[in-house]
Amino acid sequence: MVLASWRDGGTKDAIVDFVRRATSEGPDFVPVADRIAAFDNDGTLWVEQPLPPQFDFVFRHWAEEVEADPSLAELQPYKALIEKDASFLRGVATQDPPVIESLLKAFSRSWAGTTPTEFDAQVRAWLATAEQPKLGALYKDLVYQPMLELFDLLRDHGFRIFVCSGGGRDFMRVFAEETWGIHKENVIGSAAEYTYADGTIVRGEKILGTLDLGPGKPEHIFAQTGRLPVFAGGNADVDIEMLGSARFALLVNHDDAEREFAYTASAEASLAKAEELGWTVVSMKDDWSTLYGKPEQR
Amino acid sequence: MVLASWRDGGTKDAIVDFVRRATSEGPDFVPVADRIAAFDNDGTLWVEQPLPPQFDFVFRHWAEEVEADPSLAELQPYKALIEKDASFLRGVATQDPPVIESLLKAFSRSWAGTTPTEFDAQVRAWLATAEQPKLGALYKDLVYQPMLELFDLLRDHGFRIFVCSGGGRDFMRVFAEETWGIHKENVIGSAAEYTYADGTIVRGEKILGTLDLGPGKPEHIFAQTGRLPVFAGGNADVDIEMLGSARFALLVNHDDAEREFAYTASAEASLAKAEELGWTVVSMKDDWSTLYGKPEQR
Repeated sequence: MVLASWRDGGTKDAIVDFVRRATSEGPDFVPVADRIAAFDNDGTLWVEQPLPPQFDFVFRHWAEEVEADPSLAELQPYKALIEKDASFLRGVATQDPPVIESLLKAFSRSWAGTTPTEFDAQVRAWLATAEQPKLGALYKDLVYQPMLELFDLLRDHGFRIFVCSGGGRDFMRVFAEETWGIHKENVIGSAAEYTYADGTIVRGEKILGTLDLGPGKPEHIFAQTGRLPVFAGGNADVDIEMLGSARFALLVNHDDAEREFAYTASAEASLAKAEELGWTVVSMKDDWSTLYGKPEQR
Repeated sequence: MVLASWRDGGTKDAIVDFVRRATSEGPDFVPVADRIAAFDNDGTLWVEQPLPPQFDFVFRHWAEEVEADPSLAELQPYKALIEKDASFLRGVATQDPPVIESLLKAFSRSWAGTTPTEFDAQVRAWLATAEQPKLGALYKDLVYQPMLELFDLLRDHGFRIFVCSGGGRDFMRVFAEETWGIHKENVIGSAAEYTYADGTIVRGEKILGTLDLGPGKPEHIFAQTGRLPVFAGGNADVDIEMLGSARFALLVNHDDAEREFAYTASAEASLAKAEELGWTVVSMKDDWSTLYGKPEQR
């Protein structure tokens, strides 16, 4: 059944209607080659509270670094993390540029010189054990089943699905294939420059181009695909430009305190844009009958 | 018929044998997700003499600029082109770094501020009219039919084909779909940074990352796909690292003076590497029964 975890109503109708029009003869027809769909990850495809899960991965790694070298505890961002500095953590949650910049410097230092094989092993170890504290489940099992069904619907209509997140391209690529059913090359994100020498790729310190946030999202989608998306899904203010670059924009509203979280922080401007421009807003509480699929059902 | 334009012999056998082993149970099996094939463009997929065809596009554009503003004729690289400066043109042909750098600066100036729609129209106008001087045919009709058949063979075995050229990503993406049957997102090349604002993508002056030459080729393939290639095809020294990063390397040797050109300039080191490492070398003269497909046969 198409969109089985979506309750009948205006949101589901709007999606199905758009897909039908985009793939049928008529004024809204989209040629197959142009059928690019792009989705944010954190908060759009999986739970992003209390922080986007990649931060859990990173902070655990940094805790191990401090254990190995206690002198790091006096340096930022280690110090802020150890002291659970509230304004710093809020800056992480809202993707505040200076906080993100300070994190990026530390990312560079921590992972420069690693190979993809080493990094993959670290991410896989994290995926297998890291639990979301409130929900008591592995992060990788907190992927929204309705969005996976939306991927299926789009794919069945000739769309090519790309995930486009402010988070790490290489982090997401580790689980993209088994979690989302898309190849690594369909994952767009913020990324380090890598250097090739003697048969191996090694991570460098510099970021490749810009961060994949705000206007960076359509810029990265264009760089990766040569097109802007026809269908875009997001949930936050950093997705506004990506949503605005698409013909159909889907904004996920986190209003489900019971099964997940209810918040509009960092999404106020995108909710206002949705109202202004007629984007389709998903109420997680009302539009989704199931939030999380059992992995074996995928 | 598989590889219909390839004559029977060792080269064809080596390709067919590799594809069979990579896709059959056994020690050389390659999982579907890892089946990335990457090919250089100039000299590997189409004629690159007297210069890679994109230079013809660029130089015609610059001639128009000089016509509109004759004062440019005193500046480089316009001056070298107008005077047909032999050492400069040789530097273009051999992709000499300082010459390429000087060209890149002029590229940036000429195309900064253009949109993809404007650039596409320029490339399409060139494709429809620009002829290779010796062969008297449109460049777009000088694509090697045997390589298109190799794409078919690989695709039929679950490989995803990427073109990876030192040339312009956005230039190649204009004709990738109709010429090679691959989507724009499967084209990797040297590229400018683009900026998104108010619903539009506009070309900037800076290059995104590094040039897609030498070690830049496996670096760009990794950035685009998250993998190194399993199968790689090239024809020149700037392809050595890409060929070396793959399990199966195919080197096209231009030894066909009659139907095309015979030269080893800028390919001496790659031919030596092929000998040393056992890469499969294509003799265009002996291994290919047909060079150019009729467009209507594709």
